[in-house]
Amino acid sequence: METKTKAAKIEAGEAFSVKGSRGISIFDLILRIVAIVGTFGSAVAMGTTNQTLPFFNQFIEFQAQYDDFTTFTLFVIVNAIVCGYLALSLPLSILHIIRSRAANSRVLLIVLDTVMLALLSAGASAAAAIVYLAHNGNSSANWFAICQQFQNFCQRISGSLIGSFVAVVSVVLLVILSGVALSRH
Amino acid sequence: METKTKAAKIEAGEAFSVKGSRGISIFDLILRIVAIVGTFGSAVAMGTTNQTLPFFNQFIEFQAQYDDFTTFTLFVIVNAIVCGYLALSLPLSILHIIRSRAANSRVLLIVLDTVMLALLSAGASAAAAIVYLAHNGNSSANWFAICQQFQNFCQRISGSLIGSFVAVVSVVLLVILSGVALSRH
Repeated sequence: METKTKAAKIEAGEAFSVKGSRGISIFDLILRIVAIVGTFGSAVAMGTTNQTLPFFNQFIEFQAQYDDFTTFTLFVIVNAIVCGYLALSLPLSILHIIRSRAANSRVLLIVLDTVMLALLSAGASAAAAIVYLAHNGNSSANWFAICQQFQNFCQRISGSLIGSFVAVVSVVLLVILSGVALSRH
Repeated sequence: METKTKAAKIEAGEAFSVKGSRGISIFDLILRIVAIVGTFGSAVAMGTTNQTLPFFNQFIEFQAQYDDFTTFTLFVIVNAIVCGYLALSLPLSILHIIRSRAANSRVLLIVLDTVMLALLSAGASAAAAIVYLAHNGNSSANWFAICQQFQNFCQRISGSLIGSFVAVVSVVLLVILSGVALSRH
């Protein structure tokens, strides 16, 4: 009798958790799409940034390009990798909406999502550190604020960070959601 | 009969998962201690870094200190926060070794660990971007490599990154382990 009640309870719990998991899976899919748009936008915005100043002469041309800075090149690469991974993870995310009880594929996603979170967060904040330096300079190291000359360049690189940080927040929520979904099994 | 077999199967599964979860919980505790040591070492190493050059004259003193750079100040704060959080999470981690079936507290830890991972990864890589700049400079922006003058300073700030990156790897593993432990429930 006791075992029967237990099994019945478990089945009732399953019905509840399937419903809850479906909601989580749909939210998971939306967050992935938001993060794809964010990282894609960041990579494109940063990757197409350059500025040539109008006051160049015959010999010297004042030009700033994103790939003058190693950190910005890394930023584009990291955003491209995370964008590609998220696009590839979409089918699995859709599968989770249809089959809410899949646990192994959720663990796979949580592993990859966590690694991508560390990568994306690192890339975004390294770029932010350089953007901060470009805006404010550093008097101790005699690094001048280059934004006074390259205004358009600075606006573009500052703007391209936004998409990346939106994606970081999305991936944090993705990992948390996966954890909550797994706890319901 | 069928429900009985199902319940028996579930109980057998529970016995297995309790054993596996205990191993995971012990590994979780070890990783937390590694991450505490890493972040603590990083915060202290960075926070005590300064260098005064021997060739100063009466009027000008050439000095480099970690808090001349906003990013390094942030690095120390982030490492201190993560170190404090990890120390506070130790009792919960020990609780998981004793009571392997606790699910809610695991979800709480996965949420906080993920946020701390994003924070720590951001702080460490922002500092790494500035350290890279200090070593190599940037010719486009006319930022000189200050490490040629401040060699001790540069060695200290480079070394202090190591503990932080060890902690990043540990926290990535912590989140993944929590996911695996939750999937066994």
